[in-house]
Amino acid sequence: MSSFSRLVRFVARDGQTYYGDAILPAGTTDISKARQARIIQGDIFRTHRVTDEVTDIRLLLSPLALSETGTLRCLGLNYSLHAKESNMPEPKYPVLFYKPRTSSAGPSDPIPVSAMAQQYEGLDYECELVVVIGKRGRDISESDALNYVLGYAVGNDVSHRDWQIKLGGGQWSHGKGFDGWAPYGPGIVSPSVIPDPQKLRIWTKVNGEMRQDESTADMIFDVGKAIALLSQGVTLMPGDLIFTGTPSGVGMGQKPKPIWLMDGDVVEVGLENVGTW
Amino acid sequence: MSSFSRLVRFVARDGQTYYGDAILPAGTTDISKARQARIIQGDIFRTHRVTDEVTDIRLLLSPLALSETGTLRCLGLNYSLHAKESNMPEPKYPVLFYKPRTSSAGPSDPIPVSAMAQQYEGLDYECELVVVIGKRGRDISESDALNYVLGYAVGNDVSHRDWQIKLGGGQWSHGKGFDGWAPYGPGIVSPSVIPDPQKLRIWTKVNGEMRQDESTADMIFDVGKAIALLSQGVTLMPGDLIFTGTPSGVGMGQKPKPIWLMDGDVVEVGLENVGTW
Repeated sequence: MSSFSRLVRFVARDGQTYYGDAILPAGTTDISKARQARIIQGDIFRTHRVTDEVTDIRLLLSPLALSETGTLRCLGLNYSLHAKESNMPEPKYPVLFYKPRTSSAGPSDPIPVSAMAQQYEGLDYECELVVVIGKRGRDISESDALNYVLGYAVGNDVSHRDWQIKLGGGQWSHGKGFDGWAPYGPGIVSPSVIPDPQKLRIWTKVNGEMRQDESTADMIFDVGKAIALLSQGVTLMPGDLIFTGTPSGVGMGQKPKPIWLMDGDVVEVGLENVGTW
Repeated sequence: MSSFSRLVRFVARDGQTYYGDAILPAGTTDISKARQARIIQGDIFRTHRVTDEVTDIRLLLSPLALSETGTLRCLGLNYSLHAKESNMPEPKYPVLFYKPRTSSAGPSDPIPVSAMAQQYEGLDYECELVVVIGKRGRDISESDALNYVLGYAVGNDVSHRDWQIKLGGGQWSHGKGFDGWAPYGPGIVSPSVIPDPQKLRIWTKVNGEMRQDESTADMIFDVGKAIALLSQGVTLMPGDLIFTGTPSGVGMGQKPKPIWLMDGDVVEVGLENVGTW
């Protein structure tokens, strides 16, 4: 489906924004360590080509431009241990919610905390495997599902627990949909590099301290099942993102009491074979 | 902000799709009765102009093309009587959920009911005043809010109660997000025609029988308050839609027991000064 291995969108030395195929230094699979990329020409969802032109990466941007970003679907309670720490039963069907496109952001962006979010406490992180849909489909079968994947990234489903749980009348939209609260990156790794998305280590560090550290093998609905179930009666479009849920270890689940993110904290998320940011 | 009175998107006699300013026959304010429109040239969110070229309307389409449709925000429990019939307290803050762009549809489209939705019962209608956002804004004040409105339409927040309430783990996304489940139309009426959106009669008929029939005056969060509150920390974009909640009389609220929509039922929604479809 795609000719790239590790798609990045970035500002180059000339100040222009490009899509490129990241060139990894020897000994790493972390896209954030790439300093150069081969420029990609064309439409990444249709006809495109990785050129021989190599340029410096000055700044990594959100992997898709806002105009190319579709619907952001997110799964809740999709890791067994996280459902347990949330004191919730494992869902029988994916717990689905949306974020607005305007919440998408890149790996270099700070997380803005609006005045409304600052009125209450409960700012939290959630590292997640992000699936980027590459082609249009509906009623997709589980066996065919991975053919609709453009690639994988690692995202942070930033959440405000008071707004999510107490103040939204039961719907999670307010507490997860603020501008910039769906950052993902550092790039999009092709299924040709990651044929099996269910055996990847995924983690979050806060100020250098490991908080979440699991394997995507703990997912209740794996990527194939999720794509199949979310597409029943629903058309998935190129540029749609699926945030596939977070493993255990969120701030809300810390013992003996929750630990919320504070101004100035540095959150790093990571996904094996994809990268860190 | 706009030079049109009643924006429609339609297929004309030549088989092409146009934006136009609907020409109402004498004695009606119902856009669906318009048989002709003045063609609009340019970008409806930026510079455009209503020309003198009049053409026949063959088929009304969804007022915005999919590529121009942004985020669909919907309010739950936003009419006092509907909150009561749902046995829910009036919310202190808007109950917010999203529909994917692919659920948007037009006034001429049938409502598709996917196999997944057909497995359970509970298909329902919800007539709603739909606000179309015309310009980008964030942290908008209530007093300035209506300046961000491109216009008003009437929509149907099609809902499947089992998927919405019982099967979605508490989140309403599955039961409201199927393809074609956010139809709206028949066009978009400028605020110059409707300076006050809070005194409009709104209704639903099923097979000709009146089921919902109220005034937008019963809204808990009026259009200005909703725009102000939804934009706190969140950027609203041109082409975003806000479905502002439904009045009482949904199928779920019928006595002595709920009445669900069945295959072949004809649902008509209507909004004063906007139209019916």
